[in-house]
Amino acid sequence: MPSRFELANAIRALSMDAVQKAKSGHPGAPMGMADIAEVLWNDYLKHNPNDPKWPDRDRFVLSNGHGSMLLYSLLHLTGYELELEQLRNFRQLHSKTAGHPEFGYAPGIETTTGPLGQGLANAVGMAIAEKTLAAQFNRPGHEIVDHHTYCFAGDGCMMEGISHEVSSLAGTLGLGKLTVFYDDNGISIDGEVEGWFTDDTAKRFEAYGWHVIPNVDGHNPDEIKAAIELARSHDDRPSLIICKTIIGFGAPNKQGKEECHGAPLGDEEVAAARQQLGWPHAPFHVPEPIYQAWDARAQGQSRQDDWQARFARYRDEHPELAREFSRRVQCKLPAEITSEAFIEKMQQKGETLATRKASLLCLNELGPQLPELLGGSADLAPSNLTFWSGAKPISRENPGGNYLHYGVREFGMGAIMNGIVLHGGFVPYGATFLIFMEYMRNSVRMAALMGKRAIYVFTHDSIGLGEDGPTHQPIEQLTNLRTTPNLCTWRPCDAVETAAAWDAAIKRNSGPTALVLSRQNLPHQARSKSQLAEIQRGGYVLKDSEGAPELILIATGSEVALAMDAAAELENQGRAVRVVSMPSAYRFDGQDAEYRESVLPRAVTKRIAIEAGHTDYWYKYVGLDGRVIGMTTYGESAPAGELFKYFGFTVKNVVEQAGELLG
Amino acid sequence: MPSRFELANAIRALSMDAVQKAKSGHPGAPMGMADIAEVLWNDYLKHNPNDPKWPDRDRFVLSNGHGSMLLYSLLHLTGYELELEQLRNFRQLHSKTAGHPEFGYAPGIETTTGPLGQGLANAVGMAIAEKTLAAQFNRPGHEIVDHHTYCFAGDGCMMEGISHEVSSLAGTLGLGKLTVFYDDNGISIDGEVEGWFTDDTAKRFEAYGWHVIPNVDGHNPDEIKAAIELARSHDDRPSLIICKTIIGFGAPNKQGKEECHGAPLGDEEVAAARQQLGWPHAPFHVPEPIYQAWDARAQGQSRQDDWQARFARYRDEHPELAREFSRRVQCKLPAEITSEAFIEKMQQKGETLATRKASLLCLNELGPQLPELLGGSADLAPSNLTFWSGAKPISRENPGGNYLHYGVREFGMGAIMNGIVLHGGFVPYGATFLIFMEYMRNSVRMAALMGKRAIYVFTHDSIGLGEDGPTHQPIEQLTNLRTTPNLCTWRPCDAVETAAAWDAAIKRNSGPTALVLSRQNLPHQARSKSQLAEIQRGGYVLKDSEGAPELILIATGSEVALAMDAAAELENQGRAVRVVSMPSAYRFDGQDAEYRESVLPRAVTKRIAIEAGHTDYWYKYVGLDGRVIGMTTYGESAPAGELFKYFGFTVKNVVEQAGELLG
Repeated sequence: MPSRFELANAIRALSMDAVQKAKSGHPGAPMGMADIAEVLWNDYLKHNPNDPKWPDRDRFVLSNGHGSMLLYSLLHLTGYELELEQLRNFRQLHSKTAGHPEFGYAPGIETTTGPLGQGLANAVGMAIAEKTLAAQFNRPGHEIVDHHTYCFAGDGCMMEGISHEVSSLAGTLGLGKLTVFYDDNGISIDGEVEGWFTDDTAKRFEAYGWHVIPNVDGHNPDEIKAAIELARSHDDRPSLIICKTIIGFGAPNKQGKEECHGAPLGDEEVAAARQQLGWPHAPFHVPEPIYQAWDARAQGQSRQDDWQARFARYRDEHPELAREFSRRVQCKLPAEITSEAFIEKMQQKGETLATRKASLLCLNELGPQLPELLGGSADLAPSNLTFWSGAKPISRENPGGNYLHYGVREFGMGAIMNGIVLHGGFVPYGATFLIFMEYMRNSVRMAALMGKRAIYVFTHDSIGLGEDGPTHQPIEQLTNLRTTPNLCTWRPCDAVETAAAWDAAIKRNSGPTALVLSRQNLPHQARSKSQLAEIQRGGYVLKDSEGAPELILIATGSEVALAMDAAAELENQGRAVRVVSMPSAYRFDGQDAEYRESVLPRAVTKRIAIEAGHTDYWYKYVGLDGRVIGMTTYGESAPAGELFKYFGFTVKNVVEQAGELLG
Repeated sequence: MPSRFELANAIRALSMDAVQKAKSGHPGAPMGMADIAEVLWNDYLKHNPNDPKWPDRDRFVLSNGHGSMLLYSLLHLTGYELELEQLRNFRQLHSKTAGHPEFGYAPGIETTTGPLGQGLANAVGMAIAEKTLAAQFNRPGHEIVDHHTYCFAGDGCMMEGISHEVSSLAGTLGLGKLTVFYDDNGISIDGEVEGWFTDDTAKRFEAYGWHVIPNVDGHNPDEIKAAIELARSHDDRPSLIICKTIIGFGAPNKQGKEECHGAPLGDEEVAAARQQLGWPHAPFHVPEPIYQAWDARAQGQSRQDDWQARFARYRDEHPELAREFSRRVQCKLPAEITSEAFIEKMQQKGETLATRKASLLCLNELGPQLPELLGGSADLAPSNLTFWSGAKPISRENPGGNYLHYGVREFGMGAIMNGIVLHGGFVPYGATFLIFMEYMRNSVRMAALMGKRAIYVFTHDSIGLGEDGPTHQPIEQLTNLRTTPNLCTWRPCDAVETAAAWDAAIKRNSGPTALVLSRQNLPHQARSKSQLAEIQRGGYVLKDSEGAPELILIATGSEVALAMDAAAELENQGRAVRVVSMPSAYRFDGQDAEYRESVLPRAVTKRIAIEAGHTDYWYKYVGLDGRVIGMTTYGESAPAGELFKYFGFTVKNVVEQAGELLG
């Protein structure tokens, strides 16, 4: 029977070998955290390498994602479909072993990590999802949702602001099944952290209401084990286990130094480490007894079998709930939802509403049909209008709700949403002002990169928010969203397009959707049946000229009504003008060439795009012969009506520019 | 002599009246913090309303910027050039009293606040600047730099992650002259914070090494005064004064509730508040005795006169230092710096270098000439290459250095840089990977909005960073920077353009500059004397065709060499091809029409832009008849060379696309 030290050394050896072969990577963290990982994975982690998607598995998140070889080693050793060949191809094109763990690349990667702090936030989201799903589905005698979330985090994660946001919320919510291991190795890229990081981290987390286990020797399996036992014995608070470790443990000349953090050790030092660790085996060779000791497949299968049996009993007693549970964890929508009918209804009602208000109506319509909706706002519920009539806050005592008061924590919200959707069972939506998308920006990108269904409600979408002024008025943010790969952005022009956008957002399971909504009222637009259907194509002819158009006005959101008014005035002047509403350029770009040509015929080169956002984006659609009426400066503080006038969003200006363009 | 309560009520009355008149704004915070402000401003704050730019004034930052009427009231009452008329025009177009305090709009506004948490970070930056400037210029018996930084912050600031980043660093640096007043009113927009914010904030800040003064009654001037005395008595640690307050204090039916946070109280409640506060005066009327008691001009002038006298003695003893001090605080560059000569030198040397490496050479050249450079990196110094040969870390014990190890705190870094540049005396530069610009994104925008000279060194600028993979590879970030108003972005193609970019960044005093640099080596480009000069125009013809071009290739950064190679191949095929290097679209767009036409003649519609960033931005320059070779998806983890090939950045692909375009 191999010793614990030998088992941990398998991680160390694979990690240093893979980094060395790739000539690139981070050996320090895997070598430093190997002993902790060994105890956690071999003695506690509930998982089944044969079924990495088993819903009641424990979740493991490597927040210090640069230490990816730690995770790859663990997945390989415990029996996931991650062959040695993949480890040999670490960081090579199309291998499953990317530089940082990428969700969807190798089985068992629960989330993409690397951007520091966000893994910790994902873990908080997973723990929230577990607790809420348990409250919604468990019944007396039936604990079908009952798993832990474990997270490894480094100094970088602890320094990042997001760690404050999510740890604070985790404390408030009393996430007792969340255990975080802090790799307290005293080293970051600039060197010894004492020059820039002197927090009393134990005290800090106590201030958040966590259960803190300090001063654990991260290379002593007994201490690690005792700490995990202690953590698991508290179920009212999340636990932080502070492990003192030596970065690059085992590399005799580089351990404990920054040198081993982010670069290969070098052939000589790798050889010396083999010596030091007593690991005489060739590169990438793991002896069979060590493989056997690591193999988690039999135990994992038996645990899952046990759960399946328990789930069968649950299904017998609660057949409806069991069906609903299965639907939820598979992220399938209910067979029938009324979101399409609701679009028609909104068209018939023809109301003038702020699109944020229309969004609330959508939530009121869809909420009761979609118990998986898990909403929230970063302390702007009354402004974002996300707290719908059936919203129930999730709290420490009542975890079974469907709405999180995230507090003023935009970035935390975004990354927690990612954790929630990754956990499964939920469709998270989260809200803030569009400008504060910037605070959470990289978490939006991470959702898009992972292809997960998160829905963002970004209200107060332009200078139309008025008096709050330039700090609050988005200019370049729409372009930022639209140029984010795999993010679908909508800026609807009225209640009808808002309903279509919500319908699309709910049904899009391959990535996130941003709903960009107005603070102010927007008038209703008339539409034929076919126009109504074309909203889903992202861009469509809202009003056409008689005969071929000589000019196309393209507009979104609050500027569509302006385009319609300007078109009417231009027609009075004898011009043939088409108006294209383009609520989602992402959707429009996804249409076939024929449809796009039918909306924006190549022959019509006189085009004006109108949007109260940055101009540059729109040259893609108007070209060098067109114009853009938009923003190139920051806004100002004044009532919205005055601002639209001041910045040229007037019929007069559009008509004048059209006149100049048409000659 | 009016009572303290009456003095504070002047703030309350002006605030509720202005919000009421504007029908928009936030009365709660000004009314809640009026008593604290009254004690601080009347008894402690060292400032001269007649000279709001006096270098040795105390700095006051309202981090909860939505409470702007608090600041406007204080500025008006103490005698700044902010007339009552301006308060009556609160939140109206072109008034000095914008919805949130905007730097440059009214005298005495030290920084633009509103986006929560950043004011606190600005204050930390100001306190760092003070301490470092003092260490650099004070001499025995001459304390010419000796002022405090005071900051008001609300629950929102405390919840935001950035508060963690900067408070942690402030603790490490021992910023003893920083005092933060936490407005602990228990209310945020979603309601009573106990549902989402249960931190023991005192304990949290103790964990950062702060001096915490808890449980101060924020409506009791004696307690407030005692707390300030205590804070000032500690000069080794920053102080946090936790003030229990009632939001909207004085509004009998709305105080203590969310209702009074962000909306006018209503005429009735305003009248009731007048009653409750014993303030019988008409709206916007402040009785003369109250004005007199608030007037800070005489005392401020006398304090400044005293300082001037001390500064005169300093000048006598240290004439050179005094001259240098004056230059520094006026943000004037030295009369002669060699940055232009350095561009020529780099051209002559013709080295193949990573532009991040070229940037280090620039720092080594300019650093010794520019003691105002205050550098740093968010824990990526060895990767960003920002720690130049003369860099000296700033620490608690040695505050006189010129380099901050910011730790893994991008957002904190950005907002601290804003505080440093706002304080004066420094040109801050700060570095991270381009992708992590997203973590600090809104602070970059704030620098641009305020028009302050901050310099960002964003390295690892594309898939060219290689193995770290999609989480680390920027795609849409360049577009994000380029569409940010008043931000000047550079992506140089070689060491020469890097030197030009640094020269431009240093000399640009109207806003920030982003230097976007490669991890990998980039070959040198040959240039004539006039081409060398044209780099500063942001876009220029790097290689022209004989006779009129039939095709223009536009490229930046690492793709310029590719464009040159492709052009050579196309010329072999008999094509007339021009190559335009466009290191700074911001600069190019600022050139006159004639120059722009000379580089990109309207007649040449066959254009291909090449950049390893998102395609959409470039349609602005290539139009509907052109093409863009760029990225529309995320990257992958692999060696850089393979990635460029995989994503189509090859001579072959450019030549093929050119062939298709030219027909």
